Amino acid sequence: MTALDRETRKWLGSAGFTVDDEALWCEALTHGSTGESRHYQRLEFLGDRVLGLAIAGWLFERTQDDEGKLAQRLNALVSKRACAEVARRLGVPGHVRLGKQARDDGAAESENVLGDVMEALLGANYLAGGFESTCDLVRTFWREQVEGQTGRAKHPKSALQEWAAGNQRRPPEYELLDRSGPDHAARFTVRVRVHNVGEAEATAASKQEAETAAARTFMETFG
Amino acid sequence: MTALDRETRKWLGSAGFTVDDEALWCEALTHGSTGESRHYQRLEFLGDRVLGLAIAGWLFERTQDDEGKLAQRLNALVSKRACAEVARRLGVPGHVRLGKQARDDGAAESENVLGDVMEALLGANYLAGGFESTCDLVRTFWREQVEGQTGRAKHPKSALQEWAAGNQRRPPEYELLDRSGPDHAARFTVRVRVHNVGEAEATAASKQEAETAAARTFMETFG
Repeated sequence: MTALDRETRKWLGSAGFTVDDEALWCEALTHGSTGESRHYQRLEFLGDRVLGLAIAGWLFERTQDDEGKLAQRLNALVSKRACAEVARRLGVPGHVRLGKQARDDGAAESENVLGDVMEALLGANYLAGGFESTCDLVRTFWREQVEGQTGRAKHPKSALQEWAAGNQRRPPEYELLDRSGPDHAARFTVRVRVHNVGEAEATAASKQEAETAAARTFMETFG
Repeated sequence: MTALDRETRKWLGSAGFTVDDEALWCEALTHGSTGESRHYQRLEFLGDRVLGLAIAGWLFERTQDDEGKLAQRLNALVSKRACAEVARRLGVPGHVRLGKQARDDGAAESENVLGDVMEALLGANYLAGGFESTCDLVRTFWREQVEGQTGRAKHPKSALQEWAAGNQRRPPEYELLDRSGPDHAARFTVRVRVHNVGEAEATAASKQEAETAAARTFMETFG
């Protein structure tokens, strides 16, 4: 049973957590490398499910998406990466309790450790304050990600743009090769190319749709 | 928007569900094979997480097990098989709404369908009555499994016994081959054999421990 230092207690309170039993919060912030018998893994097990339901309920009420899309977004929003992102924003790295070696190895900045601690904190809050209040916290902490792009399927043109940038390639260039048919049934053929990588073509009822289809084909072929 | 028939409404209430908005409960009981646009899959998505947290919180407070053991039990307790078992006990098969073909194919008895509907019912109850009341329901419906063996690692001797029965073999026979050493440091060597399969030996500080170790070795070799 270890006490929280004053700084950490203050920080937890100002982040919105229900801090009462100090040993509980200490456990949530303690990594196994400390050698202490109570570390965050049991609370992480619990917090993982608290977060899962909090986000699932939120997505369910926000959209009429089918369960496939819901599951895709949920998985991204509860991923270690997403949890670590929230943890960094809240300032968790300054309060994780690590053994000396792990601290020297930079574990306080590790995505796995931060993601785990974030879940453990939610587990602790569930025990201290119940589901509803923890759900409110999640809706504050995760708002940016839920309202943003996390876990949404990217538009093929954005995906291609990002892929090119991420692979140190020039931006994709789209070219209208052909426009045929009468106005009420026009067909547009577009080519997209990325310099030194390759090209793809597609035909559709509008230039925009043809560009989208070409980008999708390009990513399927080269991405 | 379809109304529930009177029988089903009565059954839901007597099972303990919070039945108010009929369309919601109709959705939870409706399989995609009906061709209706609102079927159970979105509610199943939600109910899956409701069940996960309800069971995780329950296991967390019941034991001091580490997260590995907790996760093992949780996975077994929320499996399709476990959900279908609860669904059968509650009488769900008589109330699932199926398309004709699916009904003729026996989908009302399918483990997948029953497991899904069970989760969807929990999702509906979460929307209708909130987390706490759904948690109470889960603690009623799953009591037998949580207090029983579901998801517990089996004792090696039981595992071997069941394996032999399940493979139409004779029961395992244990034989004490040797007892050596002084009384305060006795060593027991035991052989276990299953007729027409094979045998294994182990030595330990008691006959019981040696039998356990021999059964474990047997299962590792032949199981």
